[in-house]
Amino acid sequence: MDLKPTKPLSGFIELLPAQQRCFDICAARMQNVLRLSGFSMLDLPAIERAEVLTDKDNWDEIETQMFLFQKGDTKMGLRYDGTVGLARYVAGHLNDLTFPFRASQFSKRYRGERAQRGRYREFYQMDLDILGINSLSTNYDAEIISVINRALESVAEFIGSAEVLIGSRPFWDALFDYLELNAAQKKDIFVLIDKKDKMGDADFAEGLSDTLGDSVKEDLVKSVFVDGYKQFVNKTEKLDAAINELNKFINVLSGMGVNNARIDLSITRGLAYYTGLVFEFKLINHPELGTAAGGGRYADLAGKFSKTKIIGVGAAIGFSRIFAAMLENDQIDLTPFSNPIDVAVLVMGDNNVAYAAGVVNALRDENIAAVSYLDTDKKFKNQIEYADKIKARFSIIIGDDESAKQVVAIKNMTTGEQQSGSVEDAIKIIRG
Amino acid sequence: MDLKPTKPLSGFIELLPAQQRCFDICAARMQNVLRLSGFSMLDLPAIERAEVLTDKDNWDEIETQMFLFQKGDTKMGLRYDGTVGLARYVAGHLNDLTFPFRASQFSKRYRGERAQRGRYREFYQMDLDILGINSLSTNYDAEIISVINRALESVAEFIGSAEVLIGSRPFWDALFDYLELNAAQKKDIFVLIDKKDKMGDADFAEGLSDTLGDSVKEDLVKSVFVDGYKQFVNKTEKLDAAINELNKFINVLSGMGVNNARIDLSITRGLAYYTGLVFEFKLINHPELGTAAGGGRYADLAGKFSKTKIIGVGAAIGFSRIFAAMLENDQIDLTPFSNPIDVAVLVMGDNNVAYAAGVVNALRDENIAAVSYLDTDKKFKNQIEYADKIKARFSIIIGDDESAKQVVAIKNMTTGEQQSGSVEDAIKIIRG
Repeated sequence: MDLKPTKPLSGFIELLPAQQRCFDICAARMQNVLRLSGFSMLDLPAIERAEVLTDKDNWDEIETQMFLFQKGDTKMGLRYDGTVGLARYVAGHLNDLTFPFRASQFSKRYRGERAQRGRYREFYQMDLDILGINSLSTNYDAEIISVINRALESVAEFIGSAEVLIGSRPFWDALFDYLELNAAQKKDIFVLIDKKDKMGDADFAEGLSDTLGDSVKEDLVKSVFVDGYKQFVNKTEKLDAAINELNKFINVLSGMGVNNARIDLSITRGLAYYTGLVFEFKLINHPELGTAAGGGRYADLAGKFSKTKIIGVGAAIGFSRIFAAMLENDQIDLTPFSNPIDVAVLVMGDNNVAYAAGVVNALRDENIAAVSYLDTDKKFKNQIEYADKIKARFSIIIGDDESAKQVVAIKNMTTGEQQSGSVEDAIKIIRG
Repeated sequence: MDLKPTKPLSGFIELLPAQQRCFDICAARMQNVLRLSGFSMLDLPAIERAEVLTDKDNWDEIETQMFLFQKGDTKMGLRYDGTVGLARYVAGHLNDLTFPFRASQFSKRYRGERAQRGRYREFYQMDLDILGINSLSTNYDAEIISVINRALESVAEFIGSAEVLIGSRPFWDALFDYLELNAAQKKDIFVLIDKKDKMGDADFAEGLSDTLGDSVKEDLVKSVFVDGYKQFVNKTEKLDAAINELNKFINVLSGMGVNNARIDLSITRGLAYYTGLVFEFKLINHPELGTAAGGGRYADLAGKFSKTKIIGVGAAIGFSRIFAAMLENDQIDLTPFSNPIDVAVLVMGDNNVAYAAGVVNALRDENIAAVSYLDTDKKFKNQIEYADKIKARFSIIIGDDESAKQVVAIKNMTTGEQQSGSVEDAIKIIRG
């Protein structure tokens, strides 16, 4: 029989134990920041009805982007983000939740497109959303950014520092009105701005020219990226409102201790459901990872599910995009994650298993990570080799003598020093 | 436009925030036990190639049991257990792992059959496996049981105590040989034994009679369940070996401090890959939940993937089966999980947001869970109502006065007592 492949499907992440410990510890630290910030952790189904995932019904095309299946008459699929499920959940539990409601999700999402280099088809994101009924101060947009900042700071020793770029959908709306663009032009230019980073300056200029055909207007749009937005002060009320909102927002952020934020109007977060301020986090030492986190404000989260107007501000941290990528590229020093075992308990002979088990339980009761080697007929040489391979800090050796005297032999695996004593003595030695 | 449904698909679990906190805390406690016992946490892809999931190729039938999809030429599907992925992973990383290798997985699995009452289509299991190359002492089978026991004890305040029933595949093999059954009879009777619990005594007797047609043999099989196995001592070498292994195993367990184990030969764990001792945990106060955890020994984990013989002992804890079921049926008192917020910080006026944010950060830095209410134009009455609704233990109120004097007003939400002081004073009060 031919052997089956042992590699995971392309686009799927699989880490070795030490990498996984790093991944898990970073997630735990960041989640702790969110918990201390009052976010409720939600764990929603990974599978949703197709009608929840999309309003479209061109199945052949959707199937190229998602993992879909049909059970009986029900079409369903794997979620591609956390927002669709959150909208459904919140709309269904309006009376069970207190608003503003702070929700976080750390979960796997799926992209059903065919495998491409560097694109994950299964990946973790960590979402934060703050939702209000009918109204929600933009102070919460600043709070979300502040909390993400603190979450990223909690793992800065691995990923370095971050900066956050603030964009504004209303600014562009106001500018397009000021430039008297028609609906089709507005839409096309928004797409262009969203793709600007990837397409390069020349292609962007050509795209602008194709859409606008008016060099004065083209230069004005380009000038936003060059000199910034300040030249548009005192042009229209709408422009002033958008610029004032941005300036005020940067002040609020600074008051909150967020000093790594700056305005960058090229940040538009695509054509998605965002309606207000938008933002993206970049890792300063890792520009190759692209956007580390992104989000913004939406005026209507759950209109598909409820007549109650739920507005909010939300963001997703690209957890796999950051950590799986850095781990796969050996960009994180795994030394702190390579020896999780405090003690290997080596057992010489089946007669000593019971006594050894008591020792192991006593260690674990004291929060000491202890592994027992229970192939008791193996030679001491093999057993100590095992202790060495798993990088245990100490070995405890239990033979007939130790069982009879109710003691243990404890060996420091770094210094080689060995001594004998009670279990309590051993615990003291292990604790240092 | 019609509103879309807000309920999750049937068979999918969705918990409210306090339920989810209970779920997460129970998982964290149990995982901590596993970590202290030296298990590496693995997080494998939820999607595997179809050929990894099954050796069968009758797709129409498989599709009634699994979630399958095809991308390009590749058939793939969602995993239904943790073992298929583990086998592939271990076979692919033989040189990266140290054996005996202790692996744990806490992850979602999927059942693609049509929705049925009380059956989850997406559920968490917590797996433990200890894997050896070529040999592995049955002491490890006892170690797995001991660790599961400790994991369940760590959440006993919610689910009560457990017992573990030990079965033996070799015992039945030996008994069938002793009764001189043919291959077809052996297979049929194994299926009968596996279903005995569900079918009732009369149907079981009828099934036995249909298969064996020999009342002496039928009575002998039935007697295993009535008087136990002891009458088969000194019949054949194979029977003696199986019975000795069982007795010795109970002794090892008892030596390890596992005193809630007993032999029950009706435990056979179906016709799966188990080849030695098998076991099932039941919750004494919750027989309605069925098997809380189950596992056993397998002689060849990864034969499909590798020529190296990987043998092991593994078990899965039915985490959703226990906790989602008990939470959905209101069988767990959620009081300890209903007020995760230590302090609600109420902010009177936008001018005070910056000062309030500094207070909030100082609290969070001290591991105090603090939520800020940032709709600062809302009246004090609305804000304190929010603090009350989220069951915050304290409120900190920040108005112009507090900002000017760099103090806070702190209110104990249980006693109603309110006082003024520095942030440091507030932290002391909150800490009690």
